[in-house]
Formats: sequence, C-alpha cells, structure tokens
Amino acid sequence: MSKARAWAGQRVLVTGGLGFIGSSVTVRLAEAGAHVTVLDALLPEYGGNRYNVASVADRIQIVVGDVRDQPLVSSLVEGQDLVFHFAAQVSYLDSMQDPRLDLDISLKGTLNILEECRRVNPTVRVVSIGSRMQFGRVERLPVDESHSMKPQSFYALHKLTAEHYCRLYHEAFGLWTAWLRLSNPFGPRQQIKHSKYGIVNWFVRLALEGQPLTVFGDGAQARDYFYIDDAVEAFLAGAMHDGPGGEAFNIGGSEPISFKTMAETIAQVTGARVEYVPWPSAWKLVETGDYVTDIRKARRLLGWAPKVPFEDGIRRTVEYYRAAFDHYA
Amino acid sequence: MSKARAWAGQRVLVTGGLGFIGSSVTVRLAEAGAHVTVLDALLPEYGGNRYNVASVADRIQIVVGDVRDQPLVSSLVEGQDLVFHFAAQVSYLDSMQDPRLDLDISLKGTLNILEECRRVNPTVRVVSIGSRMQFGRVERLPVDESHSMKPQSFYALHKLTAEHYCRLYHEAFGLWTAWLRLSNPFGPRQQIKHSKYGIVNWFVRLALEGQPLTVFGDGAQARDYFYIDDAVEAFLAGAMHDGPGGEAFNIGGSEPISFKTMAETIAQVTGARVEYVPWPSAWKLVETGDYVTDIRKARRLLGWAPKVPFEDGIRRTVEYYRAAFDHYA
Repeated sequence: MSKARAWAGQRVLVTGGLGFIGSSVTVRLAEAGAHVTVLDALLPEYGGNRYNVASVADRIQIVVGDVRDQPLVSSLVEGQDLVFHFAAQVSYLDSMQDPRLDLDISLKGTLNILEECRRVNPTVRVVSIGSRMQFGRVERLPVDESHSMKPQSFYALHKLTAEHYCRLYHEAFGLWTAWLRLSNPFGPRQQIKHSKYGIVNWFVRLALEGQPLTVFGDGAQARDYFYIDDAVEAFLAGAMHDGPGGEAFNIGGSEPISFKTMAETIAQVTGARVEYVPWPSAWKLVETGDYVTDIRKARRLLGWAPKVPFEDGIRRTVEYYRAAFDHYA
Repeated sequence: MSKARAWAGQRVLVTGGLGFIGSSVTVRLAEAGAHVTVLDALLPEYGGNRYNVASVADRIQIVVGDVRDQPLVSSLVEGQDLVFHFAAQVSYLDSMQDPRLDLDISLKGTLNILEECRRVNPTVRVVSIGSRMQFGRVERLPVDESHSMKPQSFYALHKLTAEHYCRLYHEAFGLWTAWLRLSNPFGPRQQIKHSKYGIVNWFVRLALEGQPLTVFGDGAQARDYFYIDDAVEAFLAGAMHDGPGGEAFNIGGSEPISFKTMAETIAQVTGARVEYVPWPSAWKLVETGDYVTDIRKARRLLGWAPKVPFEDGIRRTVEYYRAAFDHYA
C-alpha cells in the first residue's frame, strides 16, 4: 500500500472502535471514505462510548461484541483490507487487581485477531497498539526501540507479549503487522469517568467542574504528552508504510513537558487553580520518573512526527469536553 | 528455608508431576520424606505417565486434573509449603499449530497457580520451569541471564511471559518465586512416543529398536545436554535458596557436547549405527545454532553445578528404557 493510496473504499475493522483512540481513528477513516466496521464490547468502566463516533454513525457499521469471541472475530476479519486492533483492558491499575481478566481480553483477544487473520484473511494488514509502559523503569532518555523491557504491571506485560505475537505472526506466518507503542496521548473522546489512566483528560474534567488541579511535589517529572490527532496520523502512517511488516515503533511527543507545565496550561486555558501538595508516600513508589520518546524510527520509516503544539491540543480538548461534557462525565 | 532444612514432612504440590521433570522431582522428594501431591492432566501426547512415579505411588497423592481449573488449583495450593509448577504444553512445534491452546495451558495455568497462591497461601514458595528457547537466536556464548530474549515460538514466548509473571508476583505481591530456564535435559521418565522434543531420549529409543541414528551434516552444532538428576538437584537448590525470591537462573550442562558426539555416544553404548545425511532444507531454517549455558549465577547463588558425566547419563538412560521400554514406547 503506497503512501499516496487513498483510504476511500478501503475495508477496515477497528476493534475497540468506540474507545478513545479507536474512535478517533474510526472517525478519521470514515471521513476519508473508508468502509469501517467497529467492534466494541462497551464494557462498563472502559472507554467505549457511542457518542465518540456520532458524527460518522450513518457511515459505519457498529458491532457490539467481544474480541474474546473467536467465531465473531473470524467473521469480522474476513474480507477486510486492514485491521486496527485497539480493544484491550486499558488500566494498568485494574490489571493488578485482576490479571486473569487482563490476560483474557488483551492476550486472548489479540491472539484471536491474529490467528483468525492468518486462517481466513492472510493478506490483511494488522496494526496494533502498545504502550510506553512495556519498558518499565526507564534507564536512559529519550527511549528508543532498543531500550530493555521490564514491565511493572500485567497490563504492560501483556502488551509486551502481544507485541511478540505480532512479530511472530509476521516472522512465522508472513502476516503483515505493525505495533505502535504510545506514550501519553490526550484529547477528545477519552473517558473522563475516572482517573485510573489519562491524567491530562482527568485534569480537564476537574478544571471544567471548577475543581483545583493537584500537583505532587514540584511537578518537575517530564512526560511527552501528545495530541490525539497526532496519534491518529501515526496509526495511518503505520498502516500504510512500505516496510515488510513485523515492525514496532515508539510514538510520542517530540519534547518533554513537565507535569507542572501540563497542569498550569490547563489552568490557564480554563481558569482553574493548581494546588501543590507533598508527594503521598504510596504514590512516590509508583512514580516512574521522566519519560520522553525517541521518535527517530517513526520519523525515518513512517515519515511521522507530532505536529500539534501542546497548548493548542489542550485548547481543543477543553473546547470538546465543554461542548460535550454530559456525554462523558 | 535454609539449605540444611530437610525435606521430610514438607508439603509439596508438583504440577505436571507425572511428566519427565515433574515426576523426577516427585520421586526424589517422596524418597526424602516430603508429602507430595501431584497434579497432572495426563493429556494424550504429553509427557504424563503413571509409571514414572510407580516406585513411590504408595507415598504420594495423585490428582488427575488441570491447571486451567481454577477452583481445583485453589484447593490444591492451600496448605502447601512449596509448589513446583511444571505443567505446560511442552512442544514448541505444537505451539505453532495451536497458539491458543499453548496460551491456555501455559499462561492461564501459571496465572492460576500464582494468583491462587497469592489469595490463599501467600507464604508458599513457587518454583517454575523456563526454557533456553526464551532467548531465541543466540548472540553470544555461553548464554547468561542478561542475554536478550526474542522467542521464536509461542511455547518460548509464553515461557518468557510466565517468567515475568513470577517476577511481578514477587515484586508487586511479595510472593516467593524462582524461575529455572533449562537447556537440554535428558534421561529416564521422558516420553519417547514422538520426536517433537527431547532428541537424546528419542535417539535412545531408536537405538533400542535397532534403528540407525540420523545426523544432519557433520553434527558439529553444540548443545549442553545434562542429566535429569542434575536438573532435579537444580530445582531442589532453587527451592531452598536463601535469596529474597523473584530470581531467574539459567540451568544447563557445564560443557558443550556436539550433536555428533551425542549420537556416537548413544551408538557406542547401545551398538546402534549413526548415519550422516545432508541437512534437509526445511531443517536448516529452524536449526538454532550452538547453545551453551553460563551457569555461574546458579553456581554462585544456588551452589549448583551439574555432576553426572554425559556418558554416564546416557548409560543410565539406556538401562532405564531397556528395562521399562513397554511403559514408554
């Protein structure tokens, strides 16, 4: 598939397609004229939300179902040109409470996708989502693809295993796969019901409710927050690139942004107040330190780099949730 | 548990306890006076064989059941001092045919063991078995614990994931775990019904049937075959060592033995004939090259090193299967 190839007429399955990233990809593809089928289990507490795709609802097919359901997966991958696989248990905290559920959804789900593609649609492309958390504690910055991986949660471990699945299905069976490890995306369509993941969006919610934003310590820890539109572009580039497949890419912001700057920017845009409090001892233990992505491989092979400045992203996010608050909170 | 602590009276669960390594550990523990419960599913084509524990059958409890059965696992880990977890799908070839079955038995099974230990018996020690195959293609010899891991099969990948489980259960929940990655053990009690794994034992079978032993090329590739009794000692040392838990060890022979030497030794002991033929092209692709274990960590922390010379091991193995051929072939 060449870069110039249009998305119009492409048949695409998006698992987890009502969630944050899945729905953002879905909307983008539907607007570009692709025939999109969304598979989403709409599990309570997860990120699935029909409102996420409301703007393209008449142009896509939505199947409420589970990636753990092998016959369903088999029927859905058949005839697709592309599968974007986003469905997963997405809270690393929850994965520590129920590792077996995380295994079922994230590993068995991924294996169902890959195995059914191999069986019924071996020329399809499969693009899946990983996480910076696969790396565990960071040994050097910025983090490139060769950094060691020592996951600190079942969520992250299962992402690492699923990445190996994608590599093995490529190496052993010739399936075309790509794996994008995202750092800290934020923006419209992410759930803001709870704070178990997605702190930027959570802060936007708090700010819109007139609550203060709490920063532990001096908030100096660096993250490379990046806007959802840039994440979507990374997935489209990942799906279209000319390589032989089986590759993994680190995807993130191009520059470090301190936690403090993140909070202060949201405060500035919304008029909220930032509160600085000492680190709670329990949190100190789980804080992972600075994280910045080395995006050189993605830039070189995918021609991708994030474009939306952080403050712009925050403005657009605030605007989105201000207009659609009741659909999310 | 100090090294001097006797096994007498210890309550031990051995999963896969009718298989090659599980039964060897079981017999050793039962003879040392431990109260051993064996859990084995006796799946056809797998290595489980009641004859393996015939010599101690009156002193152990055998439960025919599956590690995938959570309530059963929960009831069995309760009250144990130690769990040796060997139950797994053990053929890397079969894992490529049915990755989902490998996932279920090897990953879900391991997660059941660890999770139920955490819930109902958090002070138990859990000792599990990994494989040299976790490393994938070897970049340097001998292979120590810091060698990179790029598994080439679902079998090997799930072993890697299960090793991370053991580390995480230790780091996050304080469970005492140990993980031993074995290279090429051989000896009494391994299945000899098929040649999908355990080539040394398979050659012993062929030799006892008067068939020639086929060596591809010059048979120069090195392995570090080691005798089952040394593997058993490694597991006992791994279970008894004074460390805080969460460790992984490479366990293998202390010296490289060429494939040719292995075959010629069996031929010499049995009177069989070795045939040299060119490499079939399909096999050339899967041959992994030389493998030798760096056992320095095991030597340092476990006080373990293999003791049985290769030819002695072969003699004992031939003797065993000569006497018990009908129970295995």
